[in-house]
Amino acid sequence: MSLQLTILGCHSATPRVNAHPTAQVLQIKNHNFLIDCGEGTQVQMRKYKISFAKIKHIFISHLHGDHFFGLIGLISTFGLLNREKELHIYGPVGLKKIIQLQLEISNSRAGFPIVFHELKSTKSELIYEDKKVTVHTIPLNHRIYTNGFLFTEKLSLRKLNIKEVKSYPEIERCDYYNLKKGKDFVRNDGSIIENEKLTLPPRKPLSYAFCSDTSYTPEIIPLIRNVDMLYHESTFLTDKEELAIKTGHSTAFQAGKIAALAQVKILLLGHYSNRYRVLPAFQKEAQKVFQNTLLSVEGSTFEVE
Amino acid sequence: MSLQLTILGCHSATPRVNAHPTAQVLQIKNHNFLIDCGEGTQVQMRKYKISFAKIKHIFISHLHGDHFFGLIGLISTFGLLNREKELHIYGPVGLKKIIQLQLEISNSRAGFPIVFHELKSTKSELIYEDKKVTVHTIPLNHRIYTNGFLFTEKLSLRKLNIKEVKSYPEIERCDYYNLKKGKDFVRNDGSIIENEKLTLPPRKPLSYAFCSDTSYTPEIIPLIRNVDMLYHESTFLTDKEELAIKTGHSTAFQAGKIAALAQVKILLLGHYSNRYRVLPAFQKEAQKVFQNTLLSVEGSTFEVE
Repeated sequence: MSLQLTILGCHSATPRVNAHPTAQVLQIKNHNFLIDCGEGTQVQMRKYKISFAKIKHIFISHLHGDHFFGLIGLISTFGLLNREKELHIYGPVGLKKIIQLQLEISNSRAGFPIVFHELKSTKSELIYEDKKVTVHTIPLNHRIYTNGFLFTEKLSLRKLNIKEVKSYPEIERCDYYNLKKGKDFVRNDGSIIENEKLTLPPRKPLSYAFCSDTSYTPEIIPLIRNVDMLYHESTFLTDKEELAIKTGHSTAFQAGKIAALAQVKILLLGHYSNRYRVLPAFQKEAQKVFQNTLLSVEGSTFEVE
Repeated sequence: MSLQLTILGCHSATPRVNAHPTAQVLQIKNHNFLIDCGEGTQVQMRKYKISFAKIKHIFISHLHGDHFFGLIGLISTFGLLNREKELHIYGPVGLKKIIQLQLEISNSRAGFPIVFHELKSTKSELIYEDKKVTVHTIPLNHRIYTNGFLFTEKLSLRKLNIKEVKSYPEIERCDYYNLKKGKDFVRNDGSIIENEKLTLPPRKPLSYAFCSDTSYTPEIIPLIRNVDMLYHESTFLTDKEELAIKTGHSTAFQAGKIAALAQVKILLLGHYSNRYRVLPAFQKEAQKVFQNTLLSVEGSTFEVE
């Protein structure tokens, strides 16, 4: 099992023919989480073979158009495709009103249940949890209320050391689940076979942090420390640092600094301003402080194992 | 001078990689009128080199997503590009609320004046007029309140027959405008040179009617009679006539019938359902009743002279 991130769009502001606004799909523990949904996301999903049916949770960081203008179209398309499955949408207060008004005025119903989870806390909060994964908000610092999202696998069950297990005929199949949960095996006579003899530790849980849009905000570091992959916006290069401050964005160098301070494994840059035509300069700038920096590119998939 | 129509999208319902929802730009008498604005229209405009700055009037037929979901993104982009010019938007009641809510919640202002002309009449009405052109609504018959639009050039001034004019030394440059307006030339002695001797008739005014979405509605014929070009939706072929009736759409054959009854010059089909992969069948079907039928195709420009 791995964690896979597919980039559908990684540019800021206005969409262009080959530069789409923010949208990405995270595959983690059999989930397909859609993160942000700029205009044209549904077409990018078709282009890069992302199954519509598998999307059950959509996370919207903030209500600037390049992060959510594609949502109403995607919802409409789900409806036209006769979706029945529930859709959960996590985003700032106001999003529900925008979507509902458009459905109402167009005399449409989505035709499937939409559950809005409206966010307003400025502190990190747990917004999704199941047996295998949690999602927390990462409060960011932008011109309007904005959250990043931290996706974390839960610790899996231990793995059976099957050769060892089978060497004890008294252990039956129905005992396996307790062994995976870490329990010692207790024989009928009360004697014990220690769990560590019978199982191997589970794979370390993987984690992914999505941080867009935000000014340089070291306050997020405790929340994203040691994540396996960090997507951090880098709208500008240092030549436009003042503009970054003014507009609530970061430079590639600042993204690198956050990655270094948080000791993440991989930094993924994105949300490039349209003023830059050549992207390797972003990587080069971040690598001054954080070597393991990659550039997000439309249609590319980044895998963490 | 001619009338030029550029197709940005001509498919129905959900946008796909090479099948965009309705949007077209009409060039008529130095205007660039944007008609409908499905998701992705701004990217299609960039792709087909339509100047953003020249768009001053946008006409929205109805509030189904495939006809207006691209509008908020286009307005935002106009704002990001520091537009200052007024933008006029003509569309059903409700559109203003949708756009304003999104601007308000995203804490944005367009930054330029937007004038909404909200439509609710079920009778044809004059919604735009200047010295050279008029625009009337064409009430259509769809699942929700829908208008087509009739764009008509006004009769131009007469053309000077310059050779003839110059043969009369008593006619001066300052007299030309009155001659173009059709007035006779009156000499100082009261004698007259008849206008017909001095001028040629102006070109016949051109007209374009846009009719999407609608069921087969012969009631529109008096409004579109003799137009130079009629765009009439043809969502389905006759094999799906029942579905057309149920969904408030037309077949290609019905579009052909309307064109024939209204004695238009050219019929342009579009709004094809995604269920059809091959389009020539639409043309063939309409041509059973109306020979001069063309298929709209993304990126193509149709010119009427």
